[in-house]
Amino acid sequence: MSTVAHTKTKPGFHKTAETVEAGAKTLPQRYFVSPDVFAREQEEIFAKQWVLVGHQSQISKAGDYFVANVANESLIIVLDQKSTIRGFYNVCRHRGTRLREDRSGHASAIQCPYHAWTYALDGRLIGAPHMDEVPGFNKADYSLNAVNLALWEGFIYVNLAESPAPLEEWFAPLAGKFSHWNLPTLRSAKRIEYDVRANWKLLFENYSECYHCPGVHPMLSKVSPYDSAENDLTDGPFLGGFMRITKGNSLTMSGNSCALPVGDVSSEDFHRVFYYSIFPNMLLSMHPDYVMVHQLWPQSPDRTLIYCDWFFHPEAAGAGQPGETGITDPGYKFNPEDAIEFWDMTNKQDWHVCELSQQGIASRAYEPGPYSSRESIPAAWDREYLRQME
Amino acid sequence: MSTVAHTKTKPGFHKTAETVEAGAKTLPQRYFVSPDVFAREQEEIFAKQWVLVGHQSQISKAGDYFVANVANESLIIVLDQKSTIRGFYNVCRHRGTRLREDRSGHASAIQCPYHAWTYALDGRLIGAPHMDEVPGFNKADYSLNAVNLALWEGFIYVNLAESPAPLEEWFAPLAGKFSHWNLPTLRSAKRIEYDVRANWKLLFENYSECYHCPGVHPMLSKVSPYDSAENDLTDGPFLGGFMRITKGNSLTMSGNSCALPVGDVSSEDFHRVFYYSIFPNMLLSMHPDYVMVHQLWPQSPDRTLIYCDWFFHPEAAGAGQPGETGITDPGYKFNPEDAIEFWDMTNKQDWHVCELSQQGIASRAYEPGPYSSRESIPAAWDREYLRQME
Amino acid sequence: MSTVAHTKTKPGFHKTAETVEAGAKTLPQRYFVSPDVFAREQEEIFAKQWVLVGHQSQISKAGDYFVANVANESLIIVLDQKSTIRGFYNVCRHRGTRLREDRSGHASAIQCPYHAWTYALDGRLIGAPHMDEVPGFNKADYSLNAVNLALWEGFIYVNLAESPAPLEEWFAPLAGKFSHWNLPTLRSAKRIEYDVRANWKLLFENYSECYHCPGVHPMLSKVSPYDSAENDLTDGPFLGGFMRITKGNSLTMSGNSCALPVGDVSSEDFHRVFYYSIFPNMLLSMHPDYVMVHQLWPQSPDRTLIYCDWFFHPEAAGAGQPGETGITDPGYKFNPEDAIEFWDMTNKQDWHVCELSQQGIASRAYEPGPYSSRESIPAAWDREYLRQME
Repeated sequence: MSTVAHTKTKPGFHKTAETVEAGAKTLPQRYFVSPDVFAREQEEIFAKQWVLVGHQSQISKAGDYFVANVANESLIIVLDQKSTIRGFYNVCRHRGTRLREDRSGHASAIQCPYHAWTYALDGRLIGAPHMDEVPGFNKADYSLNAVNLALWEGFIYVNLAESPAPLEEWFAPLAGKFSHWNLPTLRSAKRIEYDVRANWKLLFENYSECYHCPGVHPMLSKVSPYDSAENDLTDGPFLGGFMRITKGNSLTMSGNSCALPVGDVSSEDFHRVFYYSIFPNMLLSMHPDYVMVHQLWPQSPDRTLIYCDWFFHPEAAGAGQPGETGITDPGYKFNPEDAIEFWDMTNKQDWHVCELSQQGIASRAYEPGPYSSRESIPAAWDREYLRQME
Repeated sequence: MSTVAHTKTKPGFHKTAETVEAGAKTLPQRYFVSPDVFAREQEEIFAKQWVLVGHQSQISKAGDYFVANVANESLIIVLDQKSTIRGFYNVCRHRGTRLREDRSGHASAIQCPYHAWTYALDGRLIGAPHMDEVPGFNKADYSLNAVNLALWEGFIYVNLAESPAPLEEWFAPLAGKFSHWNLPTLRSAKRIEYDVRANWKLLFENYSECYHCPGVHPMLSKVSPYDSAENDLTDGPFLGGFMRITKGNSLTMSGNSCALPVGDVSSEDFHRVFYYSIFPNMLLSMHPDYVMVHQLWPQSPDRTLIYCDWFFHPEAAGAGQPGETGITDPGYKFNPEDAIEFWDMTNKQDWHVCELSQQGIASRAYEPGPYSSRESIPAAWDREYLRQME
Repeated sequence: MSTVAHTKTKPGFHKTAETVEAGAKTLPQRYFVSPDVFAREQEEIFAKQWVLVGHQSQISKAGDYFVANVANESLIIVLDQKSTIRGFYNVCRHRGTRLREDRSGHASAIQCPYHAWTYALDGRLIGAPHMDEVPGFNKADYSLNAVNLALWEGFIYVNLAESPAPLEEWFAPLAGKFSHWNLPTLRSAKRIEYDVRANWKLLFENYSECYHCPGVHPMLSKVSPYDSAENDLTDGPFLGGFMRITKGNSLTMSGNSCALPVGDVSSEDFHRVFYYSIFPNMLLSMHPDYVMVHQLWPQSPDRTLIYCDWFFHPEAAGAGQPGETGITDPGYKFNPEDAIEFWDMTNKQDWHVCELSQQGIASRAYEPGPYSSRESIPAAWDREYLRQME
């Protein structure tokens, strides 16, 4: 077990307690229970902002696709013949039929299962039986409806708005910040889906503080002190910083590293975990040897689906198991389950207390409560959310 | 296997492609997803029109009854002591209790399970304990509430309106048209119920064209070409015509006839299947040796219950199984499963694509799409529906 | 089997038939199906009246608690260190988290599972980590929200109103009436929960008459004639009287007494069962050897949860089983299942007909029906309900 010397905080990082705003309180009840607020969030945020739907590594060959659900819309995300990633509404232009039912797959074209209208991977209608008998019908008028799509650090983002501001503009404040983590090259070894009976904002607020860690996460608290957070992003749509690993080399069940380092990590970062929330639906958790990414998908005021992926160095899987012969010791063994198990346990602890909050907040006795000095980031997240909803 | 000579089309029948209206498109989204539209349909169509609830063969002895659900109302359909078929709301006049819970049965009177108020089969209150102690109470004021009921070709229709136009008036355009099929004498050998996650109108539209058959129904398409439809009813509440059977003698798994001919069918009709939609809830499919009838029961904008019955000649069951001794060969064997299995498979193929349409039509990307030249009957059905909803 | 001599009716008791009001009818449909009426009932009755939540015997040691759900609110009912029973909203004052998830238990303090804020059993906030760093924060401002709570005959009642009239005032009409039943000393041997698909008012109406008994309860009717009811409370929020036991000694499967007498019961009361409805959610059924109490918890217009407890003399369990040696014969054997089984069967018969009423009342054919001369108490209950809803 290594211990960490008292590292000097980088410029820009500061202790949470210093940034708390006086008198900050939790959001009023309606934000967590009102179907009207929920509908407005879907319309104003999830149907207008850039939202995370996946990673480019999910569709690496032309014809690979997966289906994403954004603001009640089913979208086909596909790599076309020219290696461009495209997004389309999963709806036939003839009689509205859902085109793809499976969640992911490979196809050389997109054919409707009902009347066999056929679309190329770039969305052009290339087959429509008997439609040439219809006067005035022109295939070019019936391409699949496209959705705005762009990449950030290898992650696929879509935007349902008609003419959104470019993704680059939105992410400008983070330009270059994460380059050394090599996020575009990583590959997910595992996805777990969680169905949580809590409002999506409670999950962001939960992620944004470790004030709850001593009681909720006994194992995490032992290796990463709850009061070790230092944040460099403390206002706006991108929030967070790092916490220290004071026992072991990573957040795993064993305490050992479980894979090749993912990034070009400096030595002090080998004992840090970086936690950032990316408004409105991404949680980005960077460990020395793996990156965990949560996608949050609000389903109703009191229900959220969460996709959690564990990403590793693309060559990590090449490492042998301990005791195998003929394998040069890479200095670690590739054991993704060591990380996955740790966070699956920790995730569930979080979801549980968020569900308890959802229950209590629905009470007539609930009124906004005071954030502590350890909850400056949740308070900042709430401020950004209110700005977006204005 | 028989093959069909090129039969001359009867006067009145014409190829679907000839009747398509220029520019016809599918219905706007709200007709498939709006709870308001659904409520209006229930009120304006299902609670005001003549709707199919069953066949007279289901209640052949006095006291036989079955329960039907129309526009959220539970109705008792019963054959009374004078052999009149009657319909009553399934609601006690005392404290409103549901009278019959079972879906069908036999009873000499209708007795409430709560306080034992008892009604004759013609609806008169004949027993009400202790009510003679209530001043002014008169049994004659508390008969069961009756519902309008009439027969068409042996099928039982009800109408929840106060004073509807007579059934004969509604069905006048079809007078005599189906007499030679002997529909009143047939008997159902089987009912299958389907619970389909699609709007009821999608099911009518699906039934009304075979443009989808090549992709959706490989087996049907082999024996009855998708482009063989000739329609004689092309506008109004009754729509349809026939398609040819070009391989085998009927639509069965084996291709063989599976029962006595149901009607006095002319030789050319031995190789035709007649498909008619009877607004608002009947699909009538007449094969040489059996008649299939679908009842459609909308449950919500995106859910429909379907009852499918297979009717046969009343004496068909007298035929022996092949190889039985002492049975004179009737020229066929009674094998209803041969037809039921064929259509159960085909039905499920249809329901599935209708469910996919329901999903896609709910998208913001959906807009009415162009009907092809093979979809003139769905377009005509839509027109009639819109007339009914005006 | 004992038989009952023709006992003279006490002053105040009279036969149901004498008190029926001319022309009384059941309530209009909206009272049983409307979500708006249901919401108003929850607000005007269940959130403003004294409602039964339990019995003091459930929390006999300091720190014992149970959770009650009233008008969608979760409440913690707890015995504090000074042996005072208190009620609190089950909601942390920090971020609104549900404090206790279990339905009952024992705790020395109430600690929030999220950030470990801790409350004494009397509701005072006694621990809140890091909150001393928040300027102006004062623990005294963040006690648990209390709910009004009082006892009636050992039963725990709560009232969600701000400043309700005292419990004693509400129960003044019953002062002393039930003293000889020793209700505060009894203990529940069993609770059964029922989930009934019927409006809560149908359950009160059902409890308030035995006109339905001949058809619905064949076993009960054999030992307690349906026309033996004599009522002494015939108007207002408390209604009921007694019925005779004409075969056997109690309402049990065997007909035998199953426990020590619960009260100081006079000899004629040994062959009577007293049935009282206590507005708005209690049914109180007193047998010579046990007391059955139903709590009714409306969940929606067509759904009610029912908690049914069987209470016995606190020393009843000391009696031995028949055939045990060395036990002085107490004149009975303690056999609570003999009573529980009897009423569990009878309860289910009642719930079933109430569910059938709910179904029929939802019909457009339903209109208020005439109460018989045997239904004066349901009619009185309806009058009181309408008064409360005005």
